[in-house]
Amino acid sequence: MRKAILGLDLGGTNIKSVIFDPVLNKIIFQGQIPTQAGSGVARVVDNIVSSIKDNLAAVEKSRRRVTALGIGSAGLVENGIVRNSPNLPGWQGSVPLLKLIRNKMPRGDLPVLIENDVNCLVAAEYAIGAAKGYSEVVGLAIGTGVGGGIIIGGRLVTGAHGGAGELGHMTVKMDGPLCKCGNHGCLEAMIGTDAIIQRFRQHSHSDAAVTVAQISKLAKSKDPAAIKTLSETGKILGTALASIANIFNPQMIVLGGGVIQTGKLLIDPAKQEMLKRAMPYNAKGLKIRTAKLGPAAGAVGAAILAYRYSAKSDNPEIN
Amino acid sequence: MRKAILGLDLGGTNIKSVIFDPVLNKIIFQGQIPTQAGSGVARVVDNIVSSIKDNLAAVEKSRRRVTALGIGSAGLVENGIVRNSPNLPGWQGSVPLLKLIRNKMPRGDLPVLIENDVNCLVAAEYAIGAAKGYSEVVGLAIGTGVGGGIIIGGRLVTGAHGGAGELGHMTVKMDGPLCKCGNHGCLEAMIGTDAIIQRFRQHSHSDAAVTVAQISKLAKSKDPAAIKTLSETGKILGTALASIANIFNPQMIVLGGGVIQTGKLLIDPAKQEMLKRAMPYNAKGLKIRTAKLGPAAGAVGAAILAYRYSAKSDNPEIN
Repeated sequence: MRKAILGLDLGGTNIKSVIFDPVLNKIIFQGQIPTQAGSGVARVVDNIVSSIKDNLAAVEKSRRRVTALGIGSAGLVENGIVRNSPNLPGWQGSVPLLKLIRNKMPRGDLPVLIENDVNCLVAAEYAIGAAKGYSEVVGLAIGTGVGGGIIIGGRLVTGAHGGAGELGHMTVKMDGPLCKCGNHGCLEAMIGTDAIIQRFRQHSHSDAAVTVAQISKLAKSKDPAAIKTLSETGKILGTALASIANIFNPQMIVLGGGVIQTGKLLIDPAKQEMLKRAMPYNAKGLKIRTAKLGPAAGAVGAAILAYRYSAKSDNPEIN
Repeated sequence: MRKAILGLDLGGTNIKSVIFDPVLNKIIFQGQIPTQAGSGVARVVDNIVSSIKDNLAAVEKSRRRVTALGIGSAGLVENGIVRNSPNLPGWQGSVPLLKLIRNKMPRGDLPVLIENDVNCLVAAEYAIGAAKGYSEVVGLAIGTGVGGGIIIGGRLVTGAHGGAGELGHMTVKMDGPLCKCGNHGCLEAMIGTDAIIQRFRQHSHSDAAVTVAQISKLAKSKDPAAIKTLSETGKILGTALASIANIFNPQMIVLGGGVIQTGKLLIDPAKQEMLKRAMPYNAKGLKIRTAKLGPAAGAVGAAILAYRYSAKSDNPEIN
């Protein structure tokens, strides 16, 4: 029977799922159900278990067998415990997610790996996406939050307690605006969606509700305030890219998340600023690429990491 | 015959050397000769070769045999080539150091490893110093320049081309002062000795020549301008420590270099600022320690890295 890996991506809105073939590196099928994050931890856990049940049942009808389960979650993840997951109300403390689902899921023997969602996204881009074939890769996902993932020597860097890769909370302007994390001048506080929208309001002298997608559209139709907003945001991003180049000397930085879909009007100023600021030899040959895998990347990466850990480790729950 | 490793640290003023026992992890003997950096590359190479000759001859009189040579050098080091070494005049371009010494040194078969000097220092603190027993360690050496070294999973991170670990050129204040590297607001431009001296001149309303050691002494005798200078410098250092905590989630950050010898009046404000700014779970349990090994650390680390590479690799010259 062919192996398959189940990957879930636990988002604030949806629980995305993929059944992934780890040998062909292909998605067999994918789906999603609502997270219902507002209904509390117990409901979210029930929904995760439902998704696992439904996916396992679907796979059993095919000629495959699920041999591992990977789950990507926002927050700091260590040993199956999720901490500080800001997009899931009620998850601010420690949620022993692995234990909670283990008690309710079918196939209690299934190896389960839980990892930070941006780490999953970067692992997917590394394994089968934009960074395939490279071993020194840094990924940055820019949306409401700004997250990162670090691959060194082909391995995901998780740190002492699963907290590594929080590149959105690198200080780029020490006297800058207050970040949700409590620090001042974090990259997230400077280029996350809220900061972009506030920047546009200043430049357009308007308090009207607007989204980053709308600002992007305005910029493409030559609105000066929108162009200025994206260019300034790009320069701040470029400052962070230069720091990343100097700190890691990676072969590639992969950019993902909704904000990156604004395209060249943001990314070109970012690249220019990176080249101006980074040490020349670290900038030379550094590839800045956009993520290739789209919305399923997190679930795919969770599946890929679960497969690797289950294949390599006697104790796949320790990540 | 017992093994010994020769380690050299190529500084702007002196070439320090140690004969190191890699089994006992002990310095057997140490020495130094002037670098004569001002006399150009050829003279420096001759001096390195002299040091190698003298040390090999000295070891051969004992019951030991040198089985590898490690050299720590400022600058970006890749495959025996040293680039951008700012403290060695005439070394701004690429100097093929390995090739230059290989042609002149005795025992042409000796495995040679050349590595960035701060990476050597951090490797030494990791192997036998302040960070012994830890696998996730970041080191910061603060002097005229600010350098870094990163250990992840017990391995030194070198990056795509030997340029990783340039933590002194992480931007902490994007609109901050111009750094020697061309970027603005680098950590080095904010807390290197020049910045500290300038800060003291502002606070003391004086243009008199002064050193960081003198400022430190003044601060210990309660001079308000000196205390303010160290406290402000410490806060900027703490901002960088918070970024390092968020990026790497290390077990320990080791602080070395001349500036750190100013002690608590700098380090205490740094720790407080780190705790204020870092994500709580990344800050929790993070040890901030000062380097233990003193001036020989670079040469010792070069020896330790050379020993490891020569023991593990068929091609020890590739670092």
